[in-house]
Amino acid sequence: MKCTGIWKMLVAAVCLALLGCLQAQEFRGHVSIILLGATGDLAKKYLWQGLFQLYLDEAGKGHSFSFHGAALTAPQQGQKLMDKALESLSCPKDLVPSRCDELKAQFLQLSQYRQLKTVEDYQTLNKDIETQVQQDGLWEAGRVFYFSVPPFAYADIARNINSSCRPHPGAWLRVVFEKPFGHDHLSAQQLASELGSFFQEEEMYRVDHYLGKQAVAQILPFRDQNRKALDGLWNRHHVERVEIILKETVDAGGRASFYEEYGVIRDTLQNHLTEILTLVAMELPPNISSSAAVLQHKLQAFQALRGLQKSNAILGQYQAYSGQVRQELQKPDGFQSLTPTFAGVLVHIDNLRWEGVPFILMSGKALDERVGYVRILFKNRAYCTQGERHWVPERSRCLPQQIVFYIGHGELGHPAILVSKNLFKPSLPAQSWKGVQDQPGLHLFGRPLSDYYAYRPVREQDAYSTLLSHIFHCRKESFITTENLLASWVFWTPLLDSLSFEVPRLYPGGAENDHLLDFEFSGGQLTFSQQQLEVLMPELGSVPKPSDFQVLRAQYRKSPLITAWPEELISKLANDIEAAAVQAVRRFGKFHLALSGGSSPIALFQQLATGHYSFPWAYTHLWLVDERCVPLSDPDSNFQGLQAHLLQHVRVPYYNIHPMPVHLHQRLCAEEDQGAQTYASEISALVANSSFDLVLLGMGTDGHTASLFPQSPRGLDGDQLVVLTESPFRPHQRMSLSLPLINRAKKVAVLVMGRTKREITTLVSRVGHEPKKWPISGVVPLSGQLVWYMDYEAFLG
Amino acid sequence: MKCTGIWKMLVAAVCLALLGCLQAQEFRGHVSIILLGATGDLAKKYLWQGLFQLYLDEAGKGHSFSFHGAALTAPQQGQKLMDKALESLSCPKDLVPSRCDELKAQFLQLSQYRQLKTVEDYQTLNKDIETQVQQDGLWEAGRVFYFSVPPFAYADIARNINSSCRPHPGAWLRVVFEKPFGHDHLSAQQLASELGSFFQEEEMYRVDHYLGKQAVAQILPFRDQNRKALDGLWNRHHVERVEIILKETVDAGGRASFYEEYGVIRDTLQNHLTEILTLVAMELPPNISSSAAVLQHKLQAFQALRGLQKSNAILGQYQAYSGQVRQELQKPDGFQSLTPTFAGVLVHIDNLRWEGVPFILMSGKALDERVGYVRILFKNRAYCTQGERHWVPERSRCLPQQIVFYIGHGELGHPAILVSKNLFKPSLPAQSWKGVQDQPGLHLFGRPLSDYYAYRPVREQDAYSTLLSHIFHCRKESFITTENLLASWVFWTPLLDSLSFEVPRLYPGGAENDHLLDFEFSGGQLTFSQQQLEVLMPELGSVPKPSDFQVLRAQYRKSPLITAWPEELISKLANDIEAAAVQAVRRFGKFHLALSGGSSPIALFQQLATGHYSFPWAYTHLWLVDERCVPLSDPDSNFQGLQAHLLQHVRVPYYNIHPMPVHLHQRLCAEEDQGAQTYASEISALVANSSFDLVLLGMGTDGHTASLFPQSPRGLDGDQLVVLTESPFRPHQRMSLSLPLINRAKKVAVLVMGRTKREITTLVSRVGHEPKKWPISGVVPLSGQLVWYMDYEAFLG
Repeated sequence: MKCTGIWKMLVAAVCLALLGCLQAQEFRGHVSIILLGATGDLAKKYLWQGLFQLYLDEAGKGHSFSFHGAALTAPQQGQKLMDKALESLSCPKDLVPSRCDELKAQFLQLSQYRQLKTVEDYQTLNKDIETQVQQDGLWEAGRVFYFSVPPFAYADIARNINSSCRPHPGAWLRVVFEKPFGHDHLSAQQLASELGSFFQEEEMYRVDHYLGKQAVAQILPFRDQNRKALDGLWNRHHVERVEIILKETVDAGGRASFYEEYGVIRDTLQNHLTEILTLVAMELPPNISSSAAVLQHKLQAFQALRGLQKSNAILGQYQAYSGQVRQELQKPDGFQSLTPTFAGVLVHIDNLRWEGVPFILMSGKALDERVGYVRILFKNRAYCTQGERHWVPERSRCLPQQIVFYIGHGELGHPAILVSKNLFKPSLPAQSWKGVQDQPGLHLFGRPLSDYYAYRPVREQDAYSTLLSHIFHCRKESFITTENLLASWVFWTPLLDSLSFEVPRLYPGGAENDHLLDFEFSGGQLTFSQQQLEVLMPELGSVPKPSDFQVLRAQYRKSPLITAWPEELISKLANDIEAAAVQAVRRFGKFHLALSGGSSPIALFQQLATGHYSFPWAYTHLWLVDERCVPLSDPDSNFQGLQAHLLQHVRVPYYNIHPMPVHLHQRLCAEEDQGAQTYASEISALVANSSFDLVLLGMGTDGHTASLFPQSPRGLDGDQLVVLTESPFRPHQRMSLSLPLINRAKKVAVLVMGRTKREITTLVSRVGHEPKKWPISGVVPLSGQLVWYMDYEAFLG
Repeated sequence: MKCTGIWKMLVAAVCLALLGCLQAQEFRGHVSIILLGATGDLAKKYLWQGLFQLYLDEAGKGHSFSFHGAALTAPQQGQKLMDKALESLSCPKDLVPSRCDELKAQFLQLSQYRQLKTVEDYQTLNKDIETQVQQDGLWEAGRVFYFSVPPFAYADIARNINSSCRPHPGAWLRVVFEKPFGHDHLSAQQLASELGSFFQEEEMYRVDHYLGKQAVAQILPFRDQNRKALDGLWNRHHVERVEIILKETVDAGGRASFYEEYGVIRDTLQNHLTEILTLVAMELPPNISSSAAVLQHKLQAFQALRGLQKSNAILGQYQAYSGQVRQELQKPDGFQSLTPTFAGVLVHIDNLRWEGVPFILMSGKALDERVGYVRILFKNRAYCTQGERHWVPERSRCLPQQIVFYIGHGELGHPAILVSKNLFKPSLPAQSWKGVQDQPGLHLFGRPLSDYYAYRPVREQDAYSTLLSHIFHCRKESFITTENLLASWVFWTPLLDSLSFEVPRLYPGGAENDHLLDFEFSGGQLTFSQQQLEVLMPELGSVPKPSDFQVLRAQYRKSPLITAWPEELISKLANDIEAAAVQAVRRFGKFHLALSGGSSPIALFQQLATGHYSFPWAYTHLWLVDERCVPLSDPDSNFQGLQAHLLQHVRVPYYNIHPMPVHLHQRLCAEEDQGAQTYASEISALVANSSFDLVLLGMGTDGHTASLFPQSPRGLDGDQLVVLTESPFRPHQRMSLSLPLINRAKKVAVLVMGRTKREITTLVSRVGHEPKKWPISGVVPLSGQLVWYMDYEAFLG
């Protein structure tokens, strides 16, 4: 008996190494499951029931089990608490009561309480398991340690398991963790590396229980089984938007100490909603039952996520929240929390499948209903010739087309998958999903239920039961790997940082929220639909507001000066450039525009890209005023700013774009490559009289302009049109149009913004023509016009 | 009295020249209106009533009038017919009956029938007008000739007016024409130049009576008066689609002889719907009361229209139509007409304001309802946090947002302007537009009437009354100038030509049409939503269909050969290229792809642009296999094809694009500019070992490949990587990769398509390595792989 056991064990050990995880399940043996935190809330509510379900599903298949409920409590009291938790175990409805009682009795028999506090406790546990396995003539298949304890307790427990409770080499160890997995990227990394020092990656199972929810768990199988119908649809050409929504009616009362530290984004968006997002967005692997392939494709989806900015999110907080925090955390009377209890986030995915498709993630507490869903709304590209009253839901392509993974609750009250009948009839596994009976009067997502092919699980199953089964069956794709976790934090942490001092919009809670939390997306930004009702009264003596001023016209260095608030200034400049472009194209058929790099022009580029429909881009040539000696693709390159903020959005022909040739023969700005001369010839050849229609310049705090710095030996005078120069700032090497070339332009605009420019603005207003000292003072167009554009901060300080 | 008249006349003549049209109205005088075709249908139904309305509106303001009803009928009978037509004149409702009778009597007194047949008739008319004016001591302000006659009669009448009936130089002449204005561009041009030989452009008023419909006439004023609200909305960022719809319930019965020649596109789309399209799409001039500015902006809108292709339209014909044609035109029993009675056309506008916004033009007879409207539907970019049942129409941004110019009929039954309440409250002139009372139960465009700010004309006015007033007031913007007319025909004629043998889908007519005529747009194409029910049975012995074959694999010149129908072949090649790209990027971080020009690769580019979401474009370098010595922007340039069909649709970084430097120092392929050497260095510098990851070649009917032609002195061997060559075809000068360079590639794909390649394909299959004679035979990769991709026509002939 004993011998056979050892022999089996050896075979199993070898096979594990050879065959990997799934196949190893074939070898039957003894499995010990240790539930840490066995008397806690989660255990009472879900985990014991899940373990019982696992026992019901698996016990008949050859394995033997023992369940160890563990906690810090002393044995007797602990056993009592655990017994209480176990009282409420229930069997599936289709089991006859007598059989149920029998199985329950068996399960209770196999389940024992155990205090786990000291190293010795763990050693004893280890020994007990080994002894029991030997006594019963079994071989040990593996051990599961389920950490249903607060994260601060993880390290100690993990150390003890690793040092004293690992099974023998032929058996597996699986450790299961519950979120939170850190507070941001750094803390998640620390926690991960700490756990990584005790466990192998393949031993760890991080639970996101949403991955166990039936509608969520069905996303990939649904995509797989309906490949044919979805293949042409699941992309930016057909998807209008994706909504991933988790609405709660409850508030954070009673959990304020947890919530105040985490807030809604850490509580639900960083984990649940992000996991769902990757399931929807990832490229579908050929074989979705390969955990490795699924996890790899998930990581690729993370890599394609566009970085989040403050403007991608809106935040809210229900009005009672700060009061709850004051009460539960004993905060002073005046304390106001900034923790959001509601957030909407707009996510974009920068790949060809999803480019431009808005993914809306939204979650909040104290909302009007409890519901969770993922809704894929397709573009409506139909015109129905027949009048509306003749439309047949099954066939009219003018009615909304959508696929909804209904996670639960809401008006439907159970998980479901809905597919608009005018889309296609989906294929779902008949043994686990069945049709939903119509409920007349029930409208979902704008249409009656009868407009959908609607399916619900044959047997509703709790997420934890599902996940415990997946742990047992080694289905790692339902869990969060370390890479996955860190990728998610890499994505969320910058947003969390940038929002940390943002004041959330207050909302009353429940139905009273009315339209207060409705929001809109446009140009990558998210904004509340309703303007804030409270108007902040400006303090007396405070700085003037945009509306207080109009664009002012004046003189600066004997040339016209336009001064305004930044937004109006940029708008005015963009209009002036467009007017110049239209005029030039009308007269000469083309417009030669030379642009500077830097941050102020970027706002201008954006304005030109989005607000100027009549700009004659097809006839516009774009030149660079100056360039840093870095490859064009370098983020520091001026050209790169132009490409990202303007060229990507307008249709300038390739051959009208003239980057500076700073990178020739694999070298940067080598004199012998004659890049400056090449650019000068290109200008001479294409620009009549080498006279640009408009040159846009900036002014540095040292009085430099273009890349012409004080005391520059080149470019301030002489015959050269384009020169190599040296900057006092990195990267030092530059290429620049020369002052003589700039001064041939028909129009020169100098854009100066920000209070850091105040001093030089004052100084330059007073100096004469001293280009060696202040290169900007050498900008004096021969026969063209010079106009200064300064914002109030630069001009008024 | 007489003297004053003459003096006034002289002043008017001078002032007309100085002040132009509108101001000249200030000078009061006598106006003669000659209605040609005075006893015809249009005259009876609309024109006499319109003239009476004009008299009511204008007579009190100083002008005097005479109305001459003219036709070919002899005087007595003509007068009788005309009197009958005048019997039914009616006054506005607000006029007391006695006053109405009085005015009617005055009008009848001023209206006389006159036979106009011969030159002498016109001379007499002229003399009579002059005499009358003199007798009454008036001065003549001008004459209106309204051509309510068939177009074939235009020339004669026009000649007579021009030769015998022009008023004296100080008075104006206005001639008014009714459509059709030609049958296509050529006939319209002929008609226009014929009329142009008799009349000045400013004398001609071409009527499109839709421009007189109140809702249509309000489009520009609405855009003008709501500039502030619309400024940010009226563009591609906010408009989802524009529908311009004209549905009729009547059929063409009784008018088959006209209809059979014209069809629905010429009858309504080329004129009414196109005019409306330009009103919606044009840039709004600063001053919309300037006719010149409006007409100029309209023409600009025409210029921005993307050319129509067959695939932009769908056609239908009601089932009874052919029978009606057989009957009315005495056609033989088997006659089947191809004339469409229903059309949907997808129009795109290639400017920055409208790029990508679908404009759907639809019109048809025998449909389920009579209605006309222009509907601007805005993009829905909102997420409503609060559940649907809480939405308030005025405030929920999740409900549809639309602006509708309701031309008339339909469920509303009168002209109207509708603006969704969640959009903005429009400003409309209160003296002419008033609010519409709610009609509970009435749904329009998916929403109850109460969801809209809805306005209707205070006084409904017939389009002809409006237009007659505009003719009188010289408001030319309501009429079709010659330029406008020809621009419209330039737009429509190619489509009409390409559709002339298209078989329209038959539809039963009325409500029975069901979803048969619903259609969808996608990728610029328009298709019926429902597939045609009839399946065409393939004839025995007919050519094989795509579905009959799979992709075949074989050998050609000892290398793998893939052969299939064109679509599958391109699809396979695109997949193979993507696979190569993914592999290269995975291994080396980049993918160097060299592409040929020509027509076959364009299908490939389109496939890659639209169907390959995972293609690693950001890491792909694009090189040219060969180039014609023309500027890159020349339509003949290979690069231009690449730009139009691939680069515009995917995001390849600017610096990864490597066009051949055929255009240096303003010269094309000059030896001394060393373009070939420059390209060779660029390749050597960036492509490891000068070994492209994939080179795509074609094969010419003379056995050339790349731009390496038989007997080429360069490029077939030797050390040069890139060479200048001569083609037997224009343009003769080329730049090309050399065979030795091509043969260094890791993979070479040769794409051969079309039956013209059949002979060379057979020939080349038999020849050995003879690159001097057949350059393609020199394609033998040193260590890479060669694969031939041929469609069945090229391979099987």
